[in-house]
Amino acid sequence: MHTDTVAALDIGGTKIAGALVDGSGRILVRAQRPTPAQEDGEAVMRAVTEVVAEVSASPLWPSATALGIGSAGPVNALAGTVSPVNVPGWRGFPLVERVRSATGGLPVTLVGDGVAIAAAEHWQGAARGYDNALCMVVSTGVGGGLVLNGKVYPGPTGNAGHIGHISVDLDGDLCPCGGRGCVERIASGPNIARRALEGGWAPGPDGDTSAAAVAPAARAGHPVAVASFERAAQALAAGIAATATLVEVGIVVVGGGVAGAGEVLFAPLRRSLQDYAALSFVRRLTVAPALTGTDAGLVGAAAAAAAALRDRDGPAAVGG
Amino acid sequence: MHTDTVAALDIGGTKIAGALVDGSGRILVRAQRPTPAQEDGEAVMRAVTEVVAEVSASPLWPSATALGIGSAGPVNALAGTVSPVNVPGWRGFPLVERVRSATGGLPVTLVGDGVAIAAAEHWQGAARGYDNALCMVVSTGVGGGLVLNGKVYPGPTGNAGHIGHISVDLDGDLCPCGGRGCVERIASGPNIARRALEGGWAPGPDGDTSAAAVAPAARAGHPVAVASFERAAQALAAGIAATATLVEVGIVVVGGGVAGAGEVLFAPLRRSLQDYAALSFVRRLTVAPALTGTDAGLVGAAAAAAAALRDRDGPAAVGG
Repeated sequence: MHTDTVAALDIGGTKIAGALVDGSGRILVRAQRPTPAQEDGEAVMRAVTEVVAEVSASPLWPSATALGIGSAGPVNALAGTVSPVNVPGWRGFPLVERVRSATGGLPVTLVGDGVAIAAAEHWQGAARGYDNALCMVVSTGVGGGLVLNGKVYPGPTGNAGHIGHISVDLDGDLCPCGGRGCVERIASGPNIARRALEGGWAPGPDGDTSAAAVAPAARAGHPVAVASFERAAQALAAGIAATATLVEVGIVVVGGGVAGAGEVLFAPLRRSLQDYAALSFVRRLTVAPALTGTDAGLVGAAAAAAAALRDRDGPAAVGG
Repeated sequence: MHTDTVAALDIGGTKIAGALVDGSGRILVRAQRPTPAQEDGEAVMRAVTEVVAEVSASPLWPSATALGIGSAGPVNALAGTVSPVNVPGWRGFPLVERVRSATGGLPVTLVGDGVAIAAAEHWQGAARGYDNALCMVVSTGVGGGLVLNGKVYPGPTGNAGHIGHISVDLDGDLCPCGGRGCVERIASGPNIARRALEGGWAPGPDGDTSAAAVAPAARAGHPVAVASFERAAQALAAGIAATATLVEVGIVVVGGGVAGAGEVLFAPLRRSLQDYAALSFVRRLTVAPALTGTDAGLVGAAAAAAAALRDRDGPAAVGG
C-alpha cells in the first residue's frame, strides 16, 4: 500500500496508543497511556504528548514522513479538532495543531476511529481486495467506516460511516447521542446485556453482566439470551442493509468484542439481512468477521496518513 | 459543466422520453412515448427505438457525442441491464447494448433514475455548488441519488442513493420491495393518502384520493391529514439523517409530487430532522425543494453521459 514509515495515534476513551508503522503495516515501536478521560483537556493532552515523546525517542523516528490520528468521534478533520463523546474535557479540541507542534511539524491526518478501522481492514484484513466495503466495530458502542471506489471514504469532516447512530426504529428509545432508535441503542454490548437482564437472565457466580457473559448463555440456548442477540442482529442487519442500499458495498466486516461472540451474533445477522437487503443490487452482500485485532486503530491511522500523503488534496488531508 | 451536445433517455414506468441536451443543459430536441409497461420486453424496447429514431432524425443529431440513460431501477450499470420494478417485461434487459445498436455505436452511460435526478440538481438545481448532497424524489415512490466529493456518485451498479428502500422501522410493515419499514412504505404519496383515508379523511366531490388531495386538507388543519404528512416527514427525516450520518451531506434536495405540497411536508420534515440528525457533523443540514422540473431525468442523464465522457474509467461508465 505504501513504503513510508509513518507515525500513528489511536485515541479512545480508555487508552491513548502511539506507534511507528512501516509500509507493510508492521508496528515497529509502540507506546500507551490510559486516557484520563474525566480530567480536563490539558491533562488528556499531556497523555498524548507523553505517548508522542516515547515514540519519537526511537532511533527510527526520523524515518517517519507523516502522522495519522484515529480518534473517538465526532472529529472535525476540516478544523483539525476532536470532541470525543467519552472525553468531556475535549470539545472542539485543536488536536491536529497540538500534535503537529509536538512532532516538530510532521504532516498530520485526522480521521474518526471508525474510518481508521476501515482503513486497517481494507489494507490488512477481511475487506482487502474489495472496492466497496463497510467495516464495523460492535463493542461498548457501534462504529464504522466506509471504503468506496477502492479508497477509504472519510467524508469531508472524517466522520463518514457512523452506522451506530443511524435510526432503524423511528419510534424507538432515545439514544444518548440525542437521536432515537439508533443501531447502537439496540445492538451495543451494554444494550444486549440490559435486555437479557430485563428478561430474567441471571449472571454466573462471577457476577459478570456484560454481553460477553450473555454470549455463552445464548450459545447454550437460554431463550432470553438468544433473543437479545437476535434483536441486536436485527438492528445491525437493518443498518447494514441501509448502508448497502445507499452506497452499494460488497462486504460488511464486523469486529469488536460483541462480534467475538461468533455465530450467536453472525447467524441471526445473516438471516436478518435477508429481511432488509431485498433489492437485487444488495442481495449478494458478504458478511465477514474482522481480521485485524486490537492494533487496527493504529494500523488504520497509519494507512490514512499514508493515503493523505499520496493524495494531499483528498478530503482526509489535514495539516502539514 | 460540459460543452458537448449529448443524447438522453429517461425511462420510467409511465413514459419514455428522449432528448438532445446541449452543454448548458438546454433541451434542443425532444420525443416521448407512453411506456407499454404491461406488454412484453420487446414491445417496451420498440417504444425506446421509436423515441431514439425521432430524436436522431434531428439535423442536430450528428453533434451528439454520447448518450445517457436514466432508468427506473434497479439497474445494473456493470452489465448494462435494467429490471424496473414497474416494467415486468424487462428483467436483466440488455438496454445499453440495444440502445448502442440503435444509435450506431454511441458511447452509452446507464444510471438509475435517482442518480439522474441528483446529476440534474447538482448541475442546474438546488444542489449546485455543494460537494456533498442527497437529492430525492418523493412521489408515487421515493428515490434518490448522491453527490459525494463534488461528483455524482452512482455506485458500482448505478443504484447508489436508493433512500426509498432503507428501513427506518425495523418492526414495520412489509414493503413491496421485500424489505420492511422502508422510507417509501411510509412516506410515498399513496401511503400518505392511505393513512389519511384509514384515519377517516374523506375526499372532496371530485373523488381524488391521492396525496395531492390530502395536502389541502392538511393545509386547512384537518388533523388526520396533518398527521399523515407528519408521519411521512418523520420517516423521511430518519432516512435523510441516516444518509447524512453515513456519508456526510451538506444539503438534501427534495422534489417530486409530494414535495409539491410545500410547507405541509417541509415544516414537519425540518422539525423531525432535529430528532434524528443529532451528531455535530449532521446538525447543520440544509433542506431545500428541488429546482429542476419534469425534465430533470433527461438533463441528469445527459449530465451523467457527459461526466462519463470526461472520466471513462469512472464507475458509471458503461459501453462505448
